[in-house]
Amino acid sequence: MAADLRALQLGDDGRLRHLVTLDGLPKAVLVDLLDTAAAIAAATGGKVKKLPVLRGRTVVNLFFEPSTRTRTSFELAASRLSADVVNFDVANSSTTKGESVLDTLRTLEAMHCDLFVVRHKENGTPEYLARHVRDGVSIVNAGDGNNAHPTQGLLDAYTIRAHKGADFQRLGVLLVGDILHSRVARSNLHALRTLGVGDLRVCGPRALLPTDLGAGVQVFEDFDRALRGVDVVMMLRLQKERMQEALVPSEAEYFRQYGLDARRLSLARPDAIVMHPGPMNRGVEIASDVADGPQSVILDQVSNGLVVRMAVMARLVGAGPV
Amino acid sequence: MAADLRALQLGDDGRLRHLVTLDGLPKAVLVDLLDTAAAIAAATGGKVKKLPVLRGRTVVNLFFEPSTRTRTSFELAASRLSADVVNFDVANSSTTKGESVLDTLRTLEAMHCDLFVVRHKENGTPEYLARHVRDGVSIVNAGDGNNAHPTQGLLDAYTIRAHKGADFQRLGVLLVGDILHSRVARSNLHALRTLGVGDLRVCGPRALLPTDLGAGVQVFEDFDRALRGVDVVMMLRLQKERMQEALVPSEAEYFRQYGLDARRLSLARPDAIVMHPGPMNRGVEIASDVADGPQSVILDQVSNGLVVRMAVMARLVGAGPV
Amino acid sequence: MAADLRALQLGDDGRLRHLVTLDGLPKAVLVDLLDTAAAIAAATGGKVKKLPVLRGRTVVNLFFEPSTRTRTSFELAASRLSADVVNFDVANSSTTKGESVLDTLRTLEAMHCDLFVVRHKENGTPEYLARHVRDGVSIVNAGDGNNAHPTQGLLDAYTIRAHKGADFQRLGVLLVGDILHSRVARSNLHALRTLGVGDLRVCGPRALLPTDLGAGVQVFEDFDRALRGVDVVMMLRLQKERMQEALVPSEAEYFRQYGLDARRLSLARPDAIVMHPGPMNRGVEIASDVADGPQSVILDQVSNGLVVRMAVMARLVGAGPV
Repeated sequence: MAADLRALQLGDDGRLRHLVTLDGLPKAVLVDLLDTAAAIAAATGGKVKKLPVLRGRTVVNLFFEPSTRTRTSFELAASRLSADVVNFDVANSSTTKGESVLDTLRTLEAMHCDLFVVRHKENGTPEYLARHVRDGVSIVNAGDGNNAHPTQGLLDAYTIRAHKGADFQRLGVLLVGDILHSRVARSNLHALRTLGVGDLRVCGPRALLPTDLGAGVQVFEDFDRALRGVDVVMMLRLQKERMQEALVPSEAEYFRQYGLDARRLSLARPDAIVMHPGPMNRGVEIASDVADGPQSVILDQVSNGLVVRMAVMARLVGAGPV
Repeated sequence: MAADLRALQLGDDGRLRHLVTLDGLPKAVLVDLLDTAAAIAAATGGKVKKLPVLRGRTVVNLFFEPSTRTRTSFELAASRLSADVVNFDVANSSTTKGESVLDTLRTLEAMHCDLFVVRHKENGTPEYLARHVRDGVSIVNAGDGNNAHPTQGLLDAYTIRAHKGADFQRLGVLLVGDILHSRVARSNLHALRTLGVGDLRVCGPRALLPTDLGAGVQVFEDFDRALRGVDVVMMLRLQKERMQEALVPSEAEYFRQYGLDARRLSLARPDAIVMHPGPMNRGVEIASDVADGPQSVILDQVSNGLVVRMAVMARLVGAGPV
Repeated sequence: MAADLRALQLGDDGRLRHLVTLDGLPKAVLVDLLDTAAAIAAATGGKVKKLPVLRGRTVVNLFFEPSTRTRTSFELAASRLSADVVNFDVANSSTTKGESVLDTLRTLEAMHCDLFVVRHKENGTPEYLARHVRDGVSIVNAGDGNNAHPTQGLLDAYTIRAHKGADFQRLGVLLVGDILHSRVARSNLHALRTLGVGDLRVCGPRALLPTDLGAGVQVFEDFDRALRGVDVVMMLRLQKERMQEALVPSEAEYFRQYGLDARRLSLARPDAIVMHPGPMNRGVEIASDVADGPQSVILDQVSNGLVVRMAVMARLVGAGPV
């Protein structure tokens, strides 16, 4: 499977053709994407300047599951690379009339669209589309079910590297919350293992922890213990559905056990950074004073998301060093 | 009426000013649009290159009936001509607060919009708007009720010509399905008669066949007989409403009688092409192996839709040979 | 409060930084915006030409309350200044998942967006956001509750000046309808007082008139009396909610007492102009023959809205004389 996915994503020449998962993506490719993002950030000097990388290309945001934040990030990334961007609003489209996802893709392909940013609630939809797409057309997974959210994993790795340096071996990184159902957690674990994080930990209620994390990941149910000495605390969004499913007792109880407040944060290293993929449930998984505090890099994550997505798109169309 | 519509669409100087129907559009104008589309296709060499034809102009997609596919095709066509494009989402607009269609148009006109692409469930809305619009502003009908869908008729004619050559007199063309309620069928019949198709046939259940097709069109209820020797088989989408209205018994029974499968297709000429305006109901009006088979030109139709719509817009703003 | 708002909107250097209200905006700033709009109109000569003022900048339409007309006007204004424009559709966004308005703003800020056009049903939301936004980021109020709609006030002032000249002292201006609940009325009263209109009148049913209009505004319940001798009649849209709240008896009765028809209009000066912010309820607050008649400047208002919004955005980014 890994070899198969690797061939799908990299093609024969090793060039990035699709980005559906970070699982099995070679470290060199991953680091190149981070370096490209850094080069874009440097080239645009913090200010937004448009780059001509995707001029004359068309990017389609094909979101079968709504997410205005992520869609907007991809939309801005594409337009700052000078692409034409189309938001294909699937709620209104004929897919609701029974047209299959693949027919929708084929139709847009036939309109000479070059790059599809796909979000879908079913695991594997972006991979499926990548396997069926025309030569020269690329798929970027913007989140599928609880499977993967690779650009989130990349932007988080980029953010950690920007704040803590490239020596991942000496870092302690903790992911907290609903690890079991989180595509963000999965893509982060793939990226952080590939980058060689020395001390990788997850923490959450037992019902929300996977049993197949494999070697090299320490699992905690006690949040206080998990926090000790880490450099990075990455909080996950708690989906309200988990409470309806009775996997979590209540928001208040969840916050008591797994919410990050100032006291808890003091258990980590003094220079630890706090991350969250957004949107936050303030007072549920994170206290407002921590979210807005000096150790929070949550808005950096958002900014870095833009340059990372620009880097992914640039590489997919084969643009050289930016 | 025809003379009146002709004056509306062509103006005194014979230049295309609106496109609301193919009914009565002179053959020379129709052929010029196909030629312009072919020139655009050649100029862009299969690859998308932007043409500056609509630079500084604003195109509004004014869809009172949702259709993401068709809207996207017009949106891409306009933006590849360098226009600014606004999608005016009528579901959210004040037309739902009682503002009339004409007030909406007048308001957008006053914002210096140049070209309106209009879809509406009521027959005649685009024609009505064309009669009331300011000088210099153009209306393109993107489908009105069961009346007309002229750019679909043009792109289908373009597709037939591209595959079968310009000698329409020697061609046999068959339209199959709900001819009675189909604006696609009506616009195709107008185009194909104007282009002089020698052997024009329609086929469908009696309840879905019009009685006023006039001379020159052969009418069939037996699909097998209708298919014999034709060069082009154009399948129409079956609207689910027809079953609710009991005009059609069931999807399975419809497919048995009027679905195009490989056996049936073998009754047509061996080099016959298969068309469908999309989105397809696979297994209802068309079998998947035919839809995806070597004789299918369904995705060509989608691609051709883009260049045909670019051609229509270019002509409406008076752009010369592209 | 006024001094506080003034500092918020103008900054220390007197340059426009946000536009949340016309209340307290100095006359010189207001007149400069009208002059800038006039310069833009002259530069583009009635035709739309794109100006490079916002090239490389990103404008976000952040509409928490739907309004396709106003959003489209801002969208076109921004794109004609060469900005990238993102429509952030809040109905689909995570704000519905409990993300606060401020978190949404912070997220978009972090994506390097420069200017936010904000509509919200709660009074004060744009001001609140302006107080919390990063340096260098601007807020434009596109309507908040019944508080303010400053670009509407500006475009109406622009329209009056264009038709009646800059000597506001000698003008009689009448606002008619639901003054109490109208942000359009409030912003117009602010602008017209600042510009020094000599004879300022409001008229409506007692239940829809505020009691705190202050000195200098004549209040009428009798529409016929109110009309005598005025140069400008500005009709307001009647919200259907007012009837459900029993503040207004019925549409027919409202029209009888406060609808502008040709007979009533003849009571104003013969060259009086008729205004309406749109969308109109024809037959409720205005008769169709008046709305479409020679004294109506309602579509001028729409056109002027574009150049006024371009002027506001140009000034917010510090663009010099256009």
